[in-house]
Amino acid sequence: MKTEARITLAIDAMGGDQGPSEILAGVSQAVDVSPRNTNFILFGREDDLGELIVKNPNLANDQVLVRHAPEVVGMDEKPIAGIKGKKKSSMSLALQALKDGEADALLSCGNTGCLMAGSAIRLRTLEGVERPALCTIWPGRERYFTLLDAGANPHAKPYHIVQSAVLGSNYARVALGLVRPKVGLLTIGTEEGKGNEVIHETHAMLKDIDGSIINYAGLIEGFQIFENVVDVVVCDGFVGNIVLKACESLSKLIRSFLDEELRRNALRKTGALLSKGAFKSLKQRINPEQFGGAPLLGLTKNVIKAHGSSNRNHICGAIKIGLDLVQHDMLSQVLEDIRETNEVLRPQFPIVNEGE
Amino acid sequence: MKTEARITLAIDAMGGDQGPSEILAGVSQAVDVSPRNTNFILFGREDDLGELIVKNPNLANDQVLVRHAPEVVGMDEKPIAGIKGKKKSSMSLALQALKDGEADALLSCGNTGCLMAGSAIRLRTLEGVERPALCTIWPGRERYFTLLDAGANPHAKPYHIVQSAVLGSNYARVALGLVRPKVGLLTIGTEEGKGNEVIHETHAMLKDIDGSIINYAGLIEGFQIFENVVDVVVCDGFVGNIVLKACESLSKLIRSFLDEELRRNALRKTGALLSKGAFKSLKQRINPEQFGGAPLLGLTKNVIKAHGSSNRNHICGAIKIGLDLVQHDMLSQVLEDIRETNEVLRPQFPIVNEGE
Repeated sequence: MKTEARITLAIDAMGGDQGPSEILAGVSQAVDVSPRNTNFILFGREDDLGELIVKNPNLANDQVLVRHAPEVVGMDEKPIAGIKGKKKSSMSLALQALKDGEADALLSCGNTGCLMAGSAIRLRTLEGVERPALCTIWPGRERYFTLLDAGANPHAKPYHIVQSAVLGSNYARVALGLVRPKVGLLTIGTEEGKGNEVIHETHAMLKDIDGSIINYAGLIEGFQIFENVVDVVVCDGFVGNIVLKACESLSKLIRSFLDEELRRNALRKTGALLSKGAFKSLKQRINPEQFGGAPLLGLTKNVIKAHGSSNRNHICGAIKIGLDLVQHDMLSQVLEDIRETNEVLRPQFPIVNEGE
Repeated sequence: MKTEARITLAIDAMGGDQGPSEILAGVSQAVDVSPRNTNFILFGREDDLGELIVKNPNLANDQVLVRHAPEVVGMDEKPIAGIKGKKKSSMSLALQALKDGEADALLSCGNTGCLMAGSAIRLRTLEGVERPALCTIWPGRERYFTLLDAGANPHAKPYHIVQSAVLGSNYARVALGLVRPKVGLLTIGTEEGKGNEVIHETHAMLKDIDGSIINYAGLIEGFQIFENVVDVVVCDGFVGNIVLKACESLSKLIRSFLDEELRRNALRKTGALLSKGAFKSLKQRINPEQFGGAPLLGLTKNVIKAHGSSNRNHICGAIKIGLDLVQHDMLSQVLEDIRETNEVLRPQFPIVNEGE
């Protein structure tokens, strides 16, 4: 049983491309920077984790527990099969611990599809929330911003996108420390009448809840998202996932073009050596480690997805996000905001469900 | 009247951010590299253009004609208002020349929305084509690829996306010199059943025309578009426009972060000076000048949109694209492929129109 003041994080120690040693190195960093009342339950093969803990004295203390999970969900497994077929996997057992109230937040850098499917199956959505949304943090010209849904719900109805706006606003308050984050609806062309039907309906609903519940700044176009016109960019999971992955991939492409060009002759190599600090800073600005995780918002518990390729710094950053969400009790505020949203919109949109 | 061997390009000389002098400088470059049977009709204010031609002897020859257009469509005007309200604008008159058969292709770096609306109003779609699609060329890891629709049709039905696949394949043959360009449908998650309804229907139709009409490689995800998995990425105009603008904007953001980092201290500045050739090459690779224009495909004539910020090299590249399309007689091949596509799909999808 979890005592009132204690915060417990469930860590899926087996997911990710770099294996449990990198994940545990991240947990070790997190132990150093977390309050003393934080517990970590590591889910994974007991033998593997035990060995790693022996090598890292920072983990050998009463804050860190190991829970044996004989199975591992592979990075290529299909969502439902990966979860339903592997009930003894580190991911499944970590989700179960969350469901049972043993843990307040879960971190996994495993298979995204399985984590989303598993969260939908094992956990429930918060009262009044219809669909969860994956929320990512991006670097903008002057400051960071959030974008959601990054792929949890590819068949979004207007009302789902409105709920994402509420969820994302709450997350931006906690993760980015903003009091009244500005929300923008991603579309093409910002004149009234442009875009498509889903956009028109969503825009109307967002205007209805502007002010009291969210701070709605209106429509924004693709070229504005990095310009910090808004703090919360909302779109459906289909668009969000494609934009996220295309941008990640473009950023890698530009880095590799730059690398190639800098190695092309001796002069350029010398120049690159002198200015190497600039390239390191650039990488950190584009891919900031303090935001190593993306929360799956709208659930009864905090689920954080870290990138499969996360290093120890990213893991530590993702754990920090999980702790922040618990400490700020974001879920209670979301519950209240969603209730208010439903009250405002239900008379006009009787299709809105009562939640799960 | 246009004689058989002659190719005539209508140039909207007033659009764009840099004004007519940069556009004429681009035309001047194009005169040097085009066959002697190429004519250019420049649409714009006679006095302004006359002055510029006097200063540039390369333009003072019988290949270059000036057609007076007293009005200019502003970059911020709304689509329909910009076209219908300004019938004597350089853009409107150039479209009219295309419609009347005076010109074979049109180049404009003016207002994109107005150019698309004007093309829809003044020109017709090719027989059997339901909607035009804006086709862009992007740099990939190893070679260039095309992506469409980049925003002409934000309410795409599955069949429109299928037609885009046919249009884009034809464009990739001409512009990229590929014999059997591979086509991929942009979605989230490549397992069957993922994505959304529009994707499932489109995927089924694309499989039906695979082989004879297009070379369909299947579903691709956002992270694969830059990896040259396919040569033609198809998606609806809503997604395409957002991805295009987000990626353009991200690329600018990375460049400006890099600039800032390289100026941060004397050591980095020195390094940047030594390797400045690398940054120049990088810029050229990311934003290649030879593909300065994006065609609006599916119309009875060739309409090329160049970026508002195009410099003379981009203008020359865009003119080259227009010439290539005319010389390869792409429109005839498209007509044939669309007819074949409609024959294959019509029995299963009786909703398919006969075209305009």
